[in-house]
Amino acid sequence: MRFDHVGIATRDAATLADLFGTMLDAPVAHREAFDGLDVTFLDVGEGYLELLEPLDDEGAIPRYLDREGPGLHHVALATPDVSAALETAREMGVELVDETPRPGAWGHDVAFLHPQSTGGVLVEFVER
Amino acid sequence: MRFDHVGIATRDAATLADLFGTMLDAPVAHREAFDGLDVTFLDVGEGYLELLEPLDDEGAIPRYLDREGPGLHHVALATPDVSAALETAREMGVELVDETPRPGAWGHDVAFLHPQSTGGVLVEFVER
Repeated sequence: MRFDHVGIATRDAATLADLFGTMLDAPVAHREAFDGLDVTFLDVGEGYLELLEPLDDEGAIPRYLDREGPGLHHVALATPDVSAALETAREMGVELVDETPRPGAWGHDVAFLHPQSTGGVLVEFVER
Repeated sequence: MRFDHVGIATRDAATLADLFGTMLDAPVAHREAFDGLDVTFLDVGEGYLELLEPLDDEGAIPRYLDREGPGLHHVALATPDVSAALETAREMGVELVDETPRPGAWGHDVAFLHPQSTGGVLVEFVER
């Protein structure tokens, strides 16, 4: 398994994409509207910063922004087999948010683990 | 500039290192006591998860844990020249935590930017 991206919750992805694009030399690699979010992946070399800006008030990201404010939201690890990674996590007693892989942004299957089981860190598996 | 690591604040680095080591196939790459912290870098392929466990009650990490609880703390980007990266950030109007590079863990010079200027994300530059 290897680092894939860090997810960042924001109310202003355009400004952040401009800032990080120049300051970190991190150009936009992919952008799409997905699941009520404006999702932007910035290429930071062997990995991405994923900017998540809500397009409406429903869902996990707007709730997170209301509760915590903008900032780091999750860390994603790439694996060739999300189902197998979930099975390993389950066997280790980790609570799963997604019992099976589901379609995520950029056309990849993903699954999230519950942060209570993983030191307060929201971990995502992504099949890339 | 490229992704280097995600910093994770924790009260139990040993348990988290065991969990992530097995579940994410992320072995310990480096561990040291540094600046009042037990610092562990887990290798996630082209990057690291950095576990930060306080050894005492003084400093930014124990304050963060008291305020926010355990979880994602910062994201670090590697650059060959932290001073130049800081100058670029300063020219873009970003508020700096460190005006000049300072010694960080693992023998690398580092500098932090203020999260208020960077979408709530605590960004670290590391000269690796």
